[in-house]
Amino acid sequence: MSEANRGVRGVVPPQETPLSDMRVLAVDIGGTKLAAALVGRDGSIAAHERIPTPNEPGTDAEQLWRALEGLLDKVAAAGGEPPLAGVGVGCGGPMTWPAAEVSPLNIPAWRGFPLRDRLSARYPGVPVRVHNDAICVAVGEHWLGAGRGRGNVLGMVVSTGVGGGLILGGHLVNGASGNAGHIGHVIVEPGGTPCECGGRGCLEAVARGPGLVAWAREQGWDPGERDATGVELTADARRGDPVAGAAMRRAGRAIGLALASATHLCDLEVAAIGGGLSQAGELLFDPLEEAFRAHARMLFARRLRIVPAVLGQTAGLVGAAALIHSQDRYWSAG
Amino acid sequence: MSEANRGVRGVVPPQETPLSDMRVLAVDIGGTKLAAALVGRDGSIAAHERIPTPNEPGTDAEQLWRALEGLLDKVAAAGGEPPLAGVGVGCGGPMTWPAAEVSPLNIPAWRGFPLRDRLSARYPGVPVRVHNDAICVAVGEHWLGAGRGRGNVLGMVVSTGVGGGLILGGHLVNGASGNAGHIGHVIVEPGGTPCECGGRGCLEAVARGPGLVAWAREQGWDPGERDATGVELTADARRGDPVAGAAMRRAGRAIGLALASATHLCDLEVAAIGGGLSQAGELLFDPLEEAFRAHARMLFARRLRIVPAVLGQTAGLVGAAALIHSQDRYWSAG
Repeated sequence: MSEANRGVRGVVPPQETPLSDMRVLAVDIGGTKLAAALVGRDGSIAAHERIPTPNEPGTDAEQLWRALEGLLDKVAAAGGEPPLAGVGVGCGGPMTWPAAEVSPLNIPAWRGFPLRDRLSARYPGVPVRVHNDAICVAVGEHWLGAGRGRGNVLGMVVSTGVGGGLILGGHLVNGASGNAGHIGHVIVEPGGTPCECGGRGCLEAVARGPGLVAWAREQGWDPGERDATGVELTADARRGDPVAGAAMRRAGRAIGLALASATHLCDLEVAAIGGGLSQAGELLFDPLEEAFRAHARMLFARRLRIVPAVLGQTAGLVGAAALIHSQDRYWSAG
Repeated sequence: MSEANRGVRGVVPPQETPLSDMRVLAVDIGGTKLAAALVGRDGSIAAHERIPTPNEPGTDAEQLWRALEGLLDKVAAAGGEPPLAGVGVGCGGPMTWPAAEVSPLNIPAWRGFPLRDRLSARYPGVPVRVHNDAICVAVGEHWLGAGRGRGNVLGMVVSTGVGGGLILGGHLVNGASGNAGHIGHVIVEPGGTPCECGGRGCLEAVARGPGLVAWAREQGWDPGERDATGVELTADARRGDPVAGAAMRRAGRAIGLALASATHLCDLEVAAIGGGLSQAGELLFDPLEEAFRAHARMLFARRLRIVPAVLGQTAGLVGAAALIHSQDRYWSAG
């Protein structure tokens, strides 16, 4: 495992904590789980806790907030509550940025919820910074993962959706409204498969888990008694099921095309691919490389290294912490 | 015309020139012409001269260099030779960057020609900075043109090729090797039209002038006695020729798709489109907007303003000067 996972749970630091030992309260808010931890300057993770996101129909904004507060209290207690360097949060989009009124697609209870303001009121005197969850994963992979030490990196997550974040010249790119890094909406099938964004032929429309599953079922894939999920589809591809294998090739080809476009535009060194689908290994990465190499012929573009992400489930927390710990690189807003 | 063109020719400044009055020797090196001028801190252009590029078969590297030296001497003489703030150069690619050993595709006489070193030897004691010519156009449009005052801008040139440059967070993006901004190789037809880069379906393969002309001729366009050029094709489209009109729509659609991908990835505010084809006006821009709007549906992406470039022929010189005059924004290399 990476350095990010070397941390010790529940270590109580001395009362006068030197700045270099101060930890960030890192939070990862998604439709399935809420996670939080204390993250040190070296990326070490302490007091890591997670709970299922209260996301039943009818859940209201304050119920969800109280669940989050409970989680944060638990982490603080486990960590011995040293002075915090700040609070870093990755949250599903969309959101206004940097104000962080959040409306996560997969969390209907929060629509325009003032997450940054609420956290600032709870943790006065320290910076509170919220960014898109996929951007935090990319930041984590740049800070301490597959993109470490490189100046120009795309981190992406291929899962229920396809998201990402872009580091150029050693700095996180936010774009005009904090929305840079949407690699999932680079177009790989002009006029093709309808996308949830309203467009057509986006990488996400083709390569997101549910999209692949739907395509495979249309082609005759039958999961039998099992749930029709990306995990099962990947497992069947590994067992040699031809339709499941074709689905992996379809996703790999789409990602390869999007990466060719991305590196032509941004001149990248590393693309780090995480999320459930990246577990498919060469079933995904072989057709991905093939499509990439067919479409990226110029010398500079061919230098891109396409690699699996390495931080796994903790990448989002580590990246959220980096918004504070390494703010010169990852935070340029107020 | 823009402010960039307000300059006065041949004004001789006083001997003790204040730093703020120092001018940049700006140079634009292409396959058709060599241009140079003295550019002030406000973008004013003085002593602008141009000559055809000595580009006959058999021209050797030193012949071309001597022609460039002659042009630079002429500009210096006309400008009264005040102390220079530096030398800024836009040159056709590819090149190593920032060392600027240049091998312009359309200038066979120079292959690995050490342009920066030769200019540094000629102008000792001042910075000499060379960048891709399309990047200089984008920088010019950001500094004083259609992207002025905006933080996140793509400048592009649609002509014999399709090139561009990317400004994000107010700074020029270089990428790993100075090659960021290659919008012409964002893929708009996966597996489609072969591109000179060796790939397929790049924007440049579809929308560059010669590509459009070839496509129109295949569809039956006949320029008669005239040369088969993009200029004539555009003129015929304006006259209502249906095949010429379809060619403009084909280019517009391809550019719109590439811009949708680009703004999803980079969250842009302005895309400024220059080069010969941009003269086609609404014949190009209407189908461009239509394809863009069909593929860019998220709120942040729809905020992109797609506009014609405004600096015209001098954009490259103005941008080359900005590599020196506004180095905090446009130059991050040694």
